[in-house]
This record gives sequence, structure tokens and C-alpha cells, in this order.
Amino acid sequence: MASDPVTYDIPKTFKAAVYDNPGHISTKVEELPVPEPGPGQVLVRLTHSGVCRSDLSIMTCGWEALPFPVPKGQIGGHEGVGIVQKLGPGSDVGTVKLGDRVGIKWAAAMCGTCMPCRNGFDGHCTQFKVSGYFTPGTFAQYVLAPANYVTPIPEGLESADAAPLLCAGLTSYSALRKCGAKSGEWVVISGAGGGLGHLAVQIAARGMAYRVIGLDAGSKEALVKDCGAEHFLDITKYSSEALAEEIRKLTEGLGAASVVVCAGVNAAYAQALGMLAFGGTMVCVGIPDGQRKEIGNSYPAHLVGSQKRIVGSSIGNQREAIEVLALAARGVVKTHYKLDNLENLTTVFKDMEENKMEGRVVLDLR
Amino acid sequence: MASDPVTYDIPKTFKAAVYDNPGHISTKVEELPVPEPGPGQVLVRLTHSGVCRSDLSIMTCGWEALPFPVPKGQIGGHEGVGIVQKLGPGSDVGTVKLGDRVGIKWAAAMCGTCMPCRNGFDGHCTQFKVSGYFTPGTFAQYVLAPANYVTPIPEGLESADAAPLLCAGLTSYSALRKCGAKSGEWVVISGAGGGLGHLAVQIAARGMAYRVIGLDAGSKEALVKDCGAEHFLDITKYSSEALAEEIRKLTEGLGAASVVVCAGVNAAYAQALGMLAFGGTMVCVGIPDGQRKEIGNSYPAHLVGSQKRIVGSSIGNQREAIEVLALAARGVVKTHYKLDNLENLTTVFKDMEENKMEGRVVLDLR
Amino acid sequence: MASDPVTYDIPKTFKAAVYDNPGHISTKVEELPVPEPGPGQVLVRLTHSGVCRSDLSIMTCGWEALPFPVPKGQIGGHEGVGIVQKLGPGSDVGTVKLGDRVGIKWAAAMCGTCMPCRNGFDGHCTQFKVSGYFTPGTFAQYVLAPANYVTPIPEGLESADAAPLLCAGLTSYSALRKCGAKSGEWVVISGAGGGLGHLAVQIAARGMAYRVIGLDAGSKEALVKDCGAEHFLDITKYSSEALAEEIRKLTEGLGAASVVVCAGVNAAYAQALGMLAFGGTMVCVGIPDGQRKEIGNSYPAHLVGSQKRIVGSSIGNQREAIEVLALAARGVVKTHYKLDNLENLTTVFKDMEENKMEGRVVLDLR
Amino acid sequence: MASDPVTYDIPKTFKAAVYDNPGHISTKVEELPVPEPGPGQVLVRLTHSGVCRSDLSIMTCGWEALPFPVPKGQIGGHEGVGIVQKLGPGSDVGTVKLGDRVGIKWAAAMCGTCMPCRNGFDGHCTQFKVSGYFTPGTFAQYVLAPANYVTPIPEGLESADAAPLLCAGLTSYSALRKCGAKSGEWVVISGAGGGLGHLAVQIAARGMAYRVIGLDAGSKEALVKDCGAEHFLDITKYSSEALAEEIRKLTEGLGAASVVVCAGVNAAYAQALGMLAFGGTMVCVGIPDGQRKEIGNSYPAHLVGSQKRIVGSSIGNQREAIEVLALAARGVVKTHYKLDNLENLTTVFKDMEENKMEGRVVLDLR
Repeated sequence: MASDPVTYDIPKTFKAAVYDNPGHISTKVEELPVPEPGPGQVLVRLTHSGVCRSDLSIMTCGWEALPFPVPKGQIGGHEGVGIVQKLGPGSDVGTVKLGDRVGIKWAAAMCGTCMPCRNGFDGHCTQFKVSGYFTPGTFAQYVLAPANYVTPIPEGLESADAAPLLCAGLTSYSALRKCGAKSGEWVVISGAGGGLGHLAVQIAARGMAYRVIGLDAGSKEALVKDCGAEHFLDITKYSSEALAEEIRKLTEGLGAASVVVCAGVNAAYAQALGMLAFGGTMVCVGIPDGQRKEIGNSYPAHLVGSQKRIVGSSIGNQREAIEVLALAARGVVKTHYKLDNLENLTTVFKDMEENKMEGRVVLDLR
Repeated sequence: MASDPVTYDIPKTFKAAVYDNPGHISTKVEELPVPEPGPGQVLVRLTHSGVCRSDLSIMTCGWEALPFPVPKGQIGGHEGVGIVQKLGPGSDVGTVKLGDRVGIKWAAAMCGTCMPCRNGFDGHCTQFKVSGYFTPGTFAQYVLAPANYVTPIPEGLESADAAPLLCAGLTSYSALRKCGAKSGEWVVISGAGGGLGHLAVQIAARGMAYRVIGLDAGSKEALVKDCGAEHFLDITKYSSEALAEEIRKLTEGLGAASVVVCAGVNAAYAQALGMLAFGGTMVCVGIPDGQRKEIGNSYPAHLVGSQKRIVGSSIGNQREAIEVLALAARGVVKTHYKLDNLENLTTVFKDMEENKMEGRVVLDLR
Repeated sequence: MASDPVTYDIPKTFKAAVYDNPGHISTKVEELPVPEPGPGQVLVRLTHSGVCRSDLSIMTCGWEALPFPVPKGQIGGHEGVGIVQKLGPGSDVGTVKLGDRVGIKWAAAMCGTCMPCRNGFDGHCTQFKVSGYFTPGTFAQYVLAPANYVTPIPEGLESADAAPLLCAGLTSYSALRKCGAKSGEWVVISGAGGGLGHLAVQIAARGMAYRVIGLDAGSKEALVKDCGAEHFLDITKYSSEALAEEIRKLTEGLGAASVVVCAGVNAAYAQALGMLAFGGTMVCVGIPDGQRKEIGNSYPAHLVGSQKRIVGSSIGNQREAIEVLALAARGVVKTHYKLDNLENLTTVFKDMEENKMEGRVVLDLR
Repeated sequence: MASDPVTYDIPKTFKAAVYDNPGHISTKVEELPVPEPGPGQVLVRLTHSGVCRSDLSIMTCGWEALPFPVPKGQIGGHEGVGIVQKLGPGSDVGTVKLGDRVGIKWAAAMCGTCMPCRNGFDGHCTQFKVSGYFTPGTFAQYVLAPANYVTPIPEGLESADAAPLLCAGLTSYSALRKCGAKSGEWVVISGAGGGLGHLAVQIAARGMAYRVIGLDAGSKEALVKDCGAEHFLDITKYSSEALAEEIRKLTEGLGAASVVVCAGVNAAYAQALGMLAFGGTMVCVGIPDGQRKEIGNSYPAHLVGSQKRIVGSSIGNQREAIEVLALAARGVVKTHYKLDNLENLTTVFKDMEENKMEGRVVLDLR
């Protein structure tokens, strides 16, 4: 938290990767003038940025839920970590100081006055702008950010480790905070070997003392167990009924207190309610591609009779961001990633598109 | 609560209406021997019993969710009120005493040891037997009941008024306790003029300080407003979109904090999510007849993006039964009903079947 | 919510009452230059300000809990209502617009980044400055305020009615939100006829559907019952034991689910735990004058055996401020006050000091 | 859970240790006739019983809170484990079967109908009788118990390990369930090396994912850290102020989210509030001997200003008993104890009285 009252030599220009051909997989590194922080803003010298699948969707305009095309020339990215190098006017009202190491999230800002903000859903601020979509993002050496919404990075956590937690980690953490299970109860993570899922397993098992059953394709078994799952079930080897039955056996006949659906797959949703114990909660996280489908097996009679609950979750708020970073600083959660650099970003996205990527990529921007 | 240490002149036989032809609408009044209370049981001299639509379904075996036929000769009914006239061995461990006025509910007993019981869902006890289905019910002058699960009727509440609250009132109350809204927030009751709905409106508006919007066909407007709704919307005059839009207008642009679907109609479910505010909760209560359908518009992307919740509710527990009766004793909730007697029960069911019934029927068993 | 895109004729100077002799009851009306809103700030043309007993304590430096003397020349007051007439740079990020009617509260600002802010306690922001103490307050025609922390005043609520709710109303409301009782349960308000208490009774009885027992000296009985209390007990006529016994009788032998101690009197605290039901909650609101005393009868053995809880509450947050104003706009809560003007402020404080004041005073600043 | 439909050879008499001289440390082993289970009861062949300090207080009538002398000839003990060997009439309504391994707790029975029972506080049933005090206890080879309140012992947990968890373990677990902290937050355990404390540390750190600071005298440091505490503070080396200051340092300036006072010492209570973070919760568990004292530093002004909470906790309910046993079956919690036998019970109590006992004693009753 301590920061020297230093001043920084700020260059005139900085390097950034912009979307030069929105709708296609293409980024271009450009040299741009360093902007001046406005009222309430700070200027952050980024050293790392995660690359998220949502960035790919934004770049290629492939996302039904956010139907507006990204402007040509926009700087992408929403998982940035760096140093506060300059304070705009009136940006000193909170706890952020020059020299602080801070993070930039999916939600670029919160107004603090709208209904979601007032209810602790600042990640859903009605005035919010998505970093790297409607406002310049983190594939860059410099970015402007509101002083009241950058996330402090705890000492002892590497910046490269912190970056992916600002979106993937936060999303997983927030979902688990809504899962309704008590410590010691069984939580099923569907899509347990994926980008969100492997973090959810760690957070659930080690950070919240849940007992975890991970579901994914068989190749992910080692990873999922390594992350802390007590049991792993290979979804390719079970019918939906057999899967529910197996989970019932593993949970002494009761079913799971919660199922967190990280997999963005309609079939995963259709299976989940059947795995729940009486009174259990399904958390919706992953968003299926393609045509929208209602949640399979969501029959009123079934929900009524077994008192089950379905909860939607996304993004997470500033408090949760701080909490998941604190878990990581203690070594409880760790993202699997490899470092790359800005010049290779187009290749990174192509690999992502072709599912050739193993783990996450974090860009080194130094 | 006070009861004299009197003894009662208990006759050898009693009058009861039995299902003499299960699968058809037919009841027959018979004279049966008064049973002896077993361990932990009490013998209750019933004076009133509500007649519920579920009794019709049980008699006619018309219910997909409870596929077992009711035994021939079974005494129906599950909304009974009467006086404890005899204590079985070991039935004096709790607070029930000879002479107490008590109620019999849908769930005839709780074991206290199963998972739902331990978690406060004693209405869903895994050992439970439905009154008037798997165990003799309340269309009778005498019934046996467990001392630890009869519901004390508060002084000042007429037995005839109490009877329908033991099922319909309890179900509405329990649903509202799960609706997640804070006092002062907007709650929509769908099916607001029905058996459950008109109680839910009263409980919500007067018992829990919610602001209520009632939805039903236009003929119910006066009843619904009389029950405490601030606004009434005639569902026959709006498209689903227009209904959601109108609710948004009435709630200052936010939508409702909760929608409680009392109507057992798939269309009511399909409309409900669209009426909710960000972070709002839909409570499922009414069970649609006919072929099962998934909840309309329950798209993961929508639930995730707007952080909405879906909660199933049914029956309610013993604590809630006591609470809803306390509301009624204070005049906060009142069922619309008319008195009838055991001999007319078959006619009552026929009227019910043909939708000729206005309000509820309570049998006078004295 | 709607506001015209008007501009305002803003004068060069404005009238304000300043503390010209801190430590004594003395205010002086001065003509001061209208300030320019800084980054994130708005300029508010106040029309009304409540006068709170805390202002008296600040002026006279009589408050152990806030030991720093108010600066000479400070403008007092923290319950202001007026119109946003000018926007500072960067103040347009939230929902506040030119022409909006807004309120100023005890906590002049929130940073949004500190631990209390992140946990929904923005009224306890660690960076906060008290209006009318560490920053110019609302005994004035103009005041600066942060755009993200002024409170929107709902249509249909008179500004004079709104003013006292921004402190006294909010404090009462927030305390009741922490009282742990469910609607329909018994809540005792201690000091029910006072400035906080008479609002707490209204909010509890009409806004939250609690059953209320009011405690105060006998002269307050009519007021307290008028506010919605079912029962009133004259504390001058009962011993502590008799009071607890009487409450037990009124609550069917159980005791109250909650006791909210609005009275700033040690004796009121010492009585409260004895009035609670098993598992009940005492909320601490009123702060006793004079030497600090521990809570009477707070024996560990008693708290342990009866599973009781003690909760401290103060101020309230922005969301609660909006909620209590919404109650008032519907007529559920109404402050008893009379209007006065800036020039009489010293007299108002003298009357307050001598306990000659009936109800609250609101200054008309137009 | 599985149990053979066996019958048991039940002897005519059994061995039990009775209080032959209440008011003094003296027990006598007697041969008594095996009792017949009444309605709703089961007969349990005990194999193990823990010996708790409360037994000593009951025997010596040394307890202000329970002022009734134990009857001469009473069988003591309330932490028993054994096999169900006979079912009384009507005892088969729940899930308990012949041959089940079950536990006997402090609260010998629950009525299921009183206010605490209905609210999930069955350990505080108003009809309850304390095992080994008002009803024959577990220092015996046979005991009667209600079928609906014996606690199932999970497979894989040794009976000797289970016994002390039925009182000490349950009490610690229940207190932590009320502590208000979220996983990942700091919880201070005061008296961390004691009978309750060393279990509380294990449950908090390993079973609930809290970060634990243990407080006790220096000799307990190794035990406390072994149980999972991240930090240990030797209370003999710090003033109250220094202790609070040290805790503030260890928690990054915030203070603890919760302090659980297991130590039955007034000084421990007086220190606890100062260790809490803003909004934190102190849980009262240990009951100080000697003259009653109010909780030190429980000033209304302090609780109000820092929004702190004080919560009393004791005993725990049936659900929590099952949960803490499940933790033990997984190896998450383990009591430190040594085995002894019925004939040595008087010596065990004398050692306890003279504080010569290391860890707990469990009697082998086979």
C-alpha cells in the first residue's frame, strides 16, 4: 500500500495494439500519444494484460449479447495491471496514490449512484463502459482509469499472476459467493478444466472449504484434481441420468448443494438441476454460443417440489476483486498461463480461435 | 394456550367422507370406529376442514406429480381444525395439551431427523405422508395426528377462518418469505385473484409491507385491490411485452423486486422473468397442468446478465404455519369462503371441477 | 428524475450561518462568495435545512466522540435539500443532472474505495468529512457536494419534509434494517417519542410491518400511538423488571424479537436485554451523554444462554437514504417539524439546549 | 447408514457411574437394571463417553447458571456414543434403525414444537432435559434416548473420536457458524489452546477456510499452530492495547472480522471488541466463573460508531452436530484425548479439578 511521493518520467507516446479491422482477427501495434488524466482519473503505466476470450468476441463482433461493433482503432483488453503514474484533478479523494500498483477490470468505471451500484453490483453499473470495447483497454502501455475503481494489487502477488484474476478469477469467485452452499458442502463445477472452471475449483476447494466434484472431458482430469477437486467425472462417459446418479452416490445420496455451470454449453445447463440436492442452487455463469435455449429441465413442478434455486451471476464487484486477489497473494489460487508480447497478439487470438491455446496468455507490456 | 385438564366423552364411532370410487368424483359418508392414538399421537375432534383443489386431484388420481392412486376408502382432506381430546403414550413431550385447538396440514407428520427436517423444511420431510392421501385426512369428525406436528390455532381466530390457511395460506406465506424483496419494494403476484393469489396479495401488502401489483383476468380487479394491491393489470388486455413494459412504468423504470407466480399456467412463467428488476427473484408456486414445459425465457445469458434468480417454493414449514395464523388472528389476512357440510362434499367437488365455485369451501363438521 | 437542460442565474454571493464563536451557542449570518464546483462536484442551491442536535454538539464542541473543535467561521448543518445549479468537471459520470432536487447528508462524501465503502457502509467512509463540521454545511443558500453522493429527492415529497429524513430518518431506518426481526414480529422502540424514535415507530410499524411497542415518558403516549405503536409503556411508571415483565405479557410470553434503543440513556440500555425473546437482537442507536458506561446486564452467561445479539448502528448508507425518502414520498413516514429561518438559528439552538423545542426545526433558505 | 435387521442379546443389568454424593467429587459404579424404551425412545448400548468439565460442575453443584442440585444416584455424562439395540413403540418414524451407531448430546431431547425448536435452536428446546443431570446420562453401558434426537455417527469415524465432538466440538462449530465472517477473513480465537478453543481453531482454519489468529498462554503455541492457526499471540506478554495493536498489524490494519471468545474469562471479553474490524462480530462462548461482570468496553458509542456486533452462542443444534461429525470423519477435526474407564472416573474428575488433565478423557464402556 505504501507508495513513494515520486514523480514519473512519462513519455510522449506509448505502444498499443488496436483493432484495425473490426469483425476480423487482426490487431496492429501503434504508437499513440499518452493521454492526460481527466477529473477523477489516474494514468496507469501497464506492465501486464491478460487476453480473454471476450476480447476475441469483441474484436470479431461475434457476440449476440453485445450487439454494437467495436470502433475501428480501439485498444482492446480488460485485465490490466500497472503503476499509477499521474493523478488527474480530484482523483485524490479515495485511497489510491501515486506509485500504487493497480488493476483494470471489464467494467471500466462505476458511477456509485445507479441502482446496481447502490446494491453492491458495481460491476453492472448502468453507466458502465467495457474496457477495451467502449473505452480504450489494456493491450497498451498506458491507460486512463477512474481513481475510485482501479483495484489495488496486494504485495507479494506478481503482476502477471494478478492480471487474469481481474476477469476470469473475479467471475468465478463472484459466482461461488452466490452459490448458497455452506463450507463443507458439495459443490459441482461444470466445465472444471476450463479458463473459469479451473479457477472456480481452486477457489471453492481451497478458498471456501467446499468439497468439489469437477466435470469435464477426460483429458482435464489431472488439472482438475490438481486444482483441488475430490472427484472428477468424465462427462463424455456418462449419460445425463448416469451423471446425476453418480453425483448422488458421491454425496451420500443427497446430491450437490450447488452446481456452478462454468461451461457455456446448453447441455451442461440441462444436466445441472438433476444433480442438485433438495433445496440446492444452480449458478449460471457460462453463456452458450449460438441460438438461445431455455434452461433444460427447468420445470416449475420440479423446482417447486424440490425447492431448488437458479441464480445468474457475472462479472463481480470491486470488493470481490480485492478478495480474490487476496486469495491469490496467499497462494490459494493460481492461474495457468504463459507470457507473450503485444507484437504477437494477432497470433494469440488465432490460436484461441482454433482452440490451440493451452491455459491463458498474459502479455508482458514492459 | 391455556387448556383445562378436562376429559372428553369420546363416542365409539364418527362420521367421515371416504373416497369410495377413486379415479372418479365420488365421496360417501360413513360411520367409522374412533381410533386410538398411538405413541406420540393425539386424537383430534375436528370441527372444520377446508376443501382444496389438491383433494380433487388426489381423489381423481389426476396428478402426474403424485402418481400413486389413493386407496379406496381413504378419508380425504388436509386443512383441518379441531380440539385435542385424547393423548397417546409419550405424546406429552412437547407443548400440546388436552383441550388445545390445533390444525392438521398437508404434511401429516415430520420425523425431525431427515435432511429437509434438519434444514427447516419439515413440510418436505422425507418420511412424510400427505393427509387425506396416504393417511386418513380431515373430511371427518376425528383424526389422529402427531403431537409434535399439529399446529396451535391462536385465540381469537375462528376455526373456519383458520382451516384454509393451513394449506393455501401457508403456501402463499412461505413463497413470499423466499421472494428476496425487502419491505417497501415492488412484488408482482401473478394469479392474484385465485385461491393462493388473493391470500398472497394480503400477506404481501399488509403482512410484509411490500408494494403489490396484482395480475389476473379483469373480473378479479375488485377482489385483488380489496386485498391490498396498489395496481391491477388485466392480463387479457396486454401482450407479454406490454405487461413487462407496464410494470416497468409502475416501478419507476426498475421492474419488480420479485414476481410470485401463483397461477399454474406456463404462460405466466414465461412472462415473469421479463417483469423483474436487475437482481430480482421469481418464485415458482403454481404447477401447470398438462405436459411439462421448461420455464419460458429462462435463457442463461439473460439470467447471467441481469443477475436474476428463480426459486421453487411449496408447502411451508410449521413455523411459517404459526406465523400466517398469527397474521390472520390480527385480521391482516382473511380467506374468502363459504360453509358447507360433509354430506354435500361430492357436489362441492363437482362444482370445483366445473369451475363453478366462488372462493373456497369450508366444511362444518360439528 | 426529469430535469430541464436549463442554466441558472447564480449570484456572486450567498447567505450562510457560520459558527462565529465555537464552544458557545452562537451563529452569525454572513454573505459569502458562491464557490465554484471542483472535479466531481456539483453546486447546490439549498432551499431547506434541518437543524439536528448534533449541530449543537459540534458548535459547542461538546462531543467526546468527535474531539476536534469545529473551525471558527464554519457553516454548520447536515440535512440540506436544494437544486443542482452547476456541474463541476467530471461530475456527469453518474445519474445526477442539472436541475435535480437533491439532499446533503451527515457524511459529505464517499470515496468508494475504502473498506467500509466496499462493504456497503458508505456513511462510514474512512475518507469522509462531516457536513457542517469539517466541510461547509447546509445552513446556507449554496453548498458544494460530490455528484456521486448527493441523494435524489423523489417527486411528490416536499423539500421541507425531506430535510430531517436525511439524518434522523436515515439513522432510524438503518437501525431497523439491522434489527434482525421478521415482518409480523414485535419490535420495542426505546425513546419512542423522541426525534429518532417517533420516526423509528412509523418506519417499523408502517414501512416494515413490525408490531411496535413504544417506550417513553407518559406525555409522549399520544404521539407514539399516532405514529403506529400498538402499545405504549410509560417508563416512569415501571421498574426495569416490571417493564420486561409487561413486554413479555404483551408478546405472548416470548419477549420482543428486537429492541431498538433510540434513547441516549444508559438506563435504557441496561433494560433492553431483559425485554428480548430468546435469540433476539438489541440495536444500539442513541449515544448517552456524560461518562461512558458499559451496557448494563451484558453478562456473557446471559447472552450465551439466550443466544441474544447486540448490534451497533449509525448513519446509514446512500441506498437506505433513498429508501427512507421513498417511504416518505408515499406518506408512510412524516417528521413533526416547524419552519423557521436562518436569522433565528441561534435562538433555535438555545431552545434546543433548554429542551424547549417541540419536534424538529427546518430552516427555509429561500 | 446400513444396519442389519439383527436382534441383540440385551443383558438384565448394566454398569453405570452414579453421583453418590452430589456436591462432592465422588462417583460410584453400580449395577442397574436395563430400562425398557418408552414411546419414541430407543435403547442405546454405549461404548464410549467423553468427560466434560460441565459434568464436574453438575456433580459438585458448582454452577450458578443451573442452580438445581443433581439428584443423588443420577448417572452423569452427555457425550455418549453407542449402538441402537432396541426400539420403543413409535420410535420408527424417522431414519434411525436397529444397529445404527448414534450419539447422545447435552440436550437429551427436543420437542419440535416450542419456539426455539421451530427456529432451528433445538439445543435450546424449552422442554429439554440435560443428559446426565435431569435424566440419566452416558457414564453407563446403556441409556434411553429419543429416536428423533440421537445423532447418527458417520462411517469411518471412531466412536472414541466422535464422543467429545458431541458437546465441545458442536459448541465450537455452532459459535463459528454465527461469527459473521466470510471465508478468507481473519478470525481470532481467544482461549485457542483449551478444550473448545483447539477444536475451534481446526474447524475455523480447515473446515471453514478462515484465517486464524490464536490467543492463549505461551505454552499452548505449538498445539494452536498445529491446529491450523497462522499466528499465535501469547496473551501473557501483551497489554490489552498491545494485543489489539498487534492484531491490527497482522490483519493489514483492519482488525479481525470476528473474535470468538472460548476462554471463560472476563478479561478475554474486555479485550475482544478492540480487536475487531469495523463491522466485526464478537461471539460469546466461554462463561466466566465467579461474580457476573458486564462485557468490558461494551460502550454504546463504540458499538454505534464502529457498527460492531456481539452474539451469544451455546450448544448448537442437531444439524450442526451432524456437520461437525462429518468434518471429523474426513479428518478435518480431531480431538486430543486419552482413553480411561468407568472405574477411574472419580480420579478423572479430581485431576480435572486440579487442572492436572492434559487434553480430554474418553471413557471406554465396552
